[in-house]
Amino acid sequence: MTDEVKEFTILRVTEHGMSEVEDVVVREFPLTIIFNHQELATLLCTPKDLKHLAIGFLSSEGLIENKKEIRKITLDNRRGVVRVETEGDKGVATEPLFKRIITSGGGRRAAFYSAADITNQARVESQIKISTGEVFALAKEFQHRSHVYRATGGVHSAALCDTKGILLFAEDIGRHNAIDKIFGECMLKDIPTDERIIITSGRVSSEILLKIVKRNIPMLISLAAPTDIAVDLAASLGITLIGFVRGRKMNVYTEGWRCTA
Amino acid sequence: MTDEVKEFTILRVTEHGMSEVEDVVVREFPLTIIFNHQELATLLCTPKDLKHLAIGFLSSEGLIENKKEIRKITLDNRRGVVRVETEGDKGVATEPLFKRIITSGGGRRAAFYSAADITNQARVESQIKISTGEVFALAKEFQHRSHVYRATGGVHSAALCDTKGILLFAEDIGRHNAIDKIFGECMLKDIPTDERIIITSGRVSSEILLKIVKRNIPMLISLAAPTDIAVDLAASLGITLIGFVRGRKMNVYTEGWRCTA
Repeated sequence: MTDEVKEFTILRVTEHGMSEVEDVVVREFPLTIIFNHQELATLLCTPKDLKHLAIGFLSSEGLIENKKEIRKITLDNRRGVVRVETEGDKGVATEPLFKRIITSGGGRRAAFYSAADITNQARVESQIKISTGEVFALAKEFQHRSHVYRATGGVHSAALCDTKGILLFAEDIGRHNAIDKIFGECMLKDIPTDERIIITSGRVSSEILLKIVKRNIPMLISLAAPTDIAVDLAASLGITLIGFVRGRKMNVYTEGWRCTA
Repeated sequence: MTDEVKEFTILRVTEHGMSEVEDVVVREFPLTIIFNHQELATLLCTPKDLKHLAIGFLSSEGLIENKKEIRKITLDNRRGVVRVETEGDKGVATEPLFKRIITSGGGRRAAFYSAADITNQARVESQIKISTGEVFALAKEFQHRSHVYRATGGVHSAALCDTKGILLFAEDIGRHNAIDKIFGECMLKDIPTDERIIITSGRVSSEILLKIVKRNIPMLISLAAPTDIAVDLAASLGITLIGFVRGRKMNVYTEGWRCTA
């Protein structure tokens, strides 16, 4: 965990007064992604699993379809640069990236919000079911895994699960990055995502929901809130969206037939 | 609040079992900003105070320096487009925007992380002081103001304050947007920010800290965690950074001389 946090001397105020204490703060690291010799983006992230992050980001953005395309990944940790080269040196047009600039937390371009784009996305047809007890057990295991969060309160977590437990786990200061790290690891290690579940500590916006549906995942569990567009998209794309899992309570927003008592 | 939330029929699970209930979910709205006839960015945001958001965003990005420059603001609520025109039709080069793409939550370009950029920024020299009791009182008032949050759990809040109370308040699904709404309102209504305080519900990354220092604000209070770069920047730029205000506890990360018992 040494790379992920930094120690500071701070002033702590409690009912008993003020005192100087040592405290750890989560690190923020700028990672520049160079894709086929073209500078693509700089992500502010937690400096861990950076190759997973780069590949997951490129895959979420539709620039890499599968592992076979990847010719080379070079990470320069000191300079904060990861270079990814693919077969055929696929380039990126400037125009779509230019439009993709700034959103609530990650950069989905507005064009995706047209009806045409969403109807191009196939519904997730999985028949997977989960009991409410299994959801609560997954959420409990998930919260125990977040070591950096417990130390600093400053990161989001994401996990790939099946109904019985957590398969992959990632943390990052960005909720988008944590999920991209999971999907990057899946691609690099040939781990299938069909019939599996994603848990996130963060809010579920349309951008997060679209990352999930791209991987044909039938169920998304959040400890926090969804937005209206995320709920609408989950309904139309056949994804079971669960939010506000806290203690023995939760909200099932869509496709509740996959949840059993 | 009708524009900011949407009602859904959901399945609520509690200790007593499952039941169908009506629940409200926070809305997510894509707002495209067209600056001097050039499409600049699409922000995913809460559809309220959209002119404030557009002006605050443009000001944070350094594209508008003061109110006098603004010739016209036209908001098309139905299409989600705001057009801002300035004197002299200042344009935007594609290259810097292209580099500003995607970060943990808003899009600060990586170039800002060079030492040169930070040393160009003047230290905040304010002699303002605040008592710990005043911080706790501000945080309490701040939490009471967040109506949408209390209804949906899905938004961030930001406020401009002095030591005695809240002057301006804004909410948004994005923590960057909430702060930009405050600064946009300040610019449009000629409200000074010197010697004032910003409170945010969200985490403090370097991007948030830089928005604050640009407005010469000496004190930033967060209910959540900062990152290491935010703490380092606050120290070198003379900003009092307070985090984790919860009940009667808080952490003062930098410039603690402005806090009195």
